[in-house]
Amino acid sequence: MVDGVLAARIAAELPAWTVAGEELVGRWRFPDFASAIAAAVHVGALAERADHHPELRLGWGFLEVRLTTHSAGALTSRDADLAAAAQAVLGAPRQAP
Amino acid sequence: MVDGVLAARIAAELPAWTVAGEELVGRWRFPDFASAIAAAVHVGALAERADHHPELRLGWGFLEVRLTTHSAGALTSRDADLAAAAQAVLGAPRQAP
Repeated sequence: MVDGVLAARIAAELPAWTVAGEELVGRWRFPDFASAIAAAVHVGALAERADHHPELRLGWGFLEVRLTTHSAGALTSRDADLAAAAQAVLGAPRQAP
Repeated sequence: MVDGVLAARIAAELPAWTVAGEELVGRWRFPDFASAIAAAVHVGALAERADHHPELRLGWGFLEVRLTTHSAGALTSRDADLAAAAQAVLGAPRQAP
């Protein structure tokens, strides 16, 4: 579940992300595997800075970032903050999960 | 499906890996997020060298490597080769998927 304020923020700032259950999911396409790994490392550095860690799924040509706040059992503003930071680096997600 | 020769090789060389449908899956635990990212980068370098690319799933304290041969629609010796290379670097997987 997502509270109304957070849902409004996601709709406004993160429209290309998908809310799936308790997760906020963004997916990007890349031309090869190395680009996907490089993007994962970049998001990983943002995660370390925020001390908030997503699950990353990647392979040849794609990276998926899955955010939730385990301690809350829900999406929180920390997820939206990290999604916004990832989006600032990678651009908006370009493929639905 | 896995042919008999490959199944025997997996049983002998890769007993801590799990065959799940068309995938060969290994999962490792780590003490933090940075270690999981570092391991993913290492496996990614092995994948680039082999020109054979797994799906990687990682988060705080874990890395999962999922191998299949898309062109064959099945597990092949290329998957076992890359699994063995990853295992040589990271040790045997230490947690079932």
